[in-house]
Amino acid sequence: MYGQIGKLIALPGKRDELIALLLENVDAMPGCLSYIVAADASDENAIWVTEAWDSKESHDGSLKLPGVRKSIDKARPMIAGFGDSFNTMPVGGRGLQVTKTA
Amino acid sequence: MYGQIGKLIALPGKRDELIALLLENVDAMPGCLSYIVAADASDENAIWVTEAWDSKESHDGSLKLPGVRKSIDKARPMIAGFGDSFNTMPVGGRGLQVTKTA
Repeated sequence: MYGQIGKLIALPGKRDELIALLLENVDAMPGCLSYIVAADASDENAIWVTEAWDSKESHDGSLKLPGVRKSIDKARPMIAGFGDSFNTMPVGGRGLQVTKTA
Repeated sequence: MYGQIGKLIALPGKRDELIALLLENVDAMPGCLSYIVAADASDENAIWVTEAWDSKESHDGSLKLPGVRKSIDKARPMIAGFGDSFNTMPVGGRGLQVTKTA
């Protein structure tokens, strides 16, 4: 499995709108096992996206999907910057869409 | 919803064993919507745990469950330390066990 944990900073007042865009394609990304969008509890402009995929190829491929590209284009003007970003290798847990993993 | 993103550092050579302990109770934690354990891709001793719960109370309550306490006791000697930790408010996504959220 391949995973990412990443922080985005929304422009002031734009966090909710940006979160909605990040959630637009969650059910149309092949190989996506988990994709959770969360507001940071202490920074009113920060968003966390935690992802698990069956492979890095699936993740990279998702960025080329027309629906995802459209959402990214709409989201870009609302993003003030990026914070911490971590690459992971998910091992298991609760909430992964499949039990057997790549 | 209530969420946490946290990093643990295992003692050298103990990461796999520690991950197994962290996964022991994933299906027996009331209110847990997602709980994914991942190995860090660049630090061979680091582990990420990303969690989503219906409430902070459910999260806090899980730490009092006998099974969880037992696993924590077994895990403690393998933990070298803790890294970054972030509290979040998950909004939505793929891989949450319930659709309607607290």
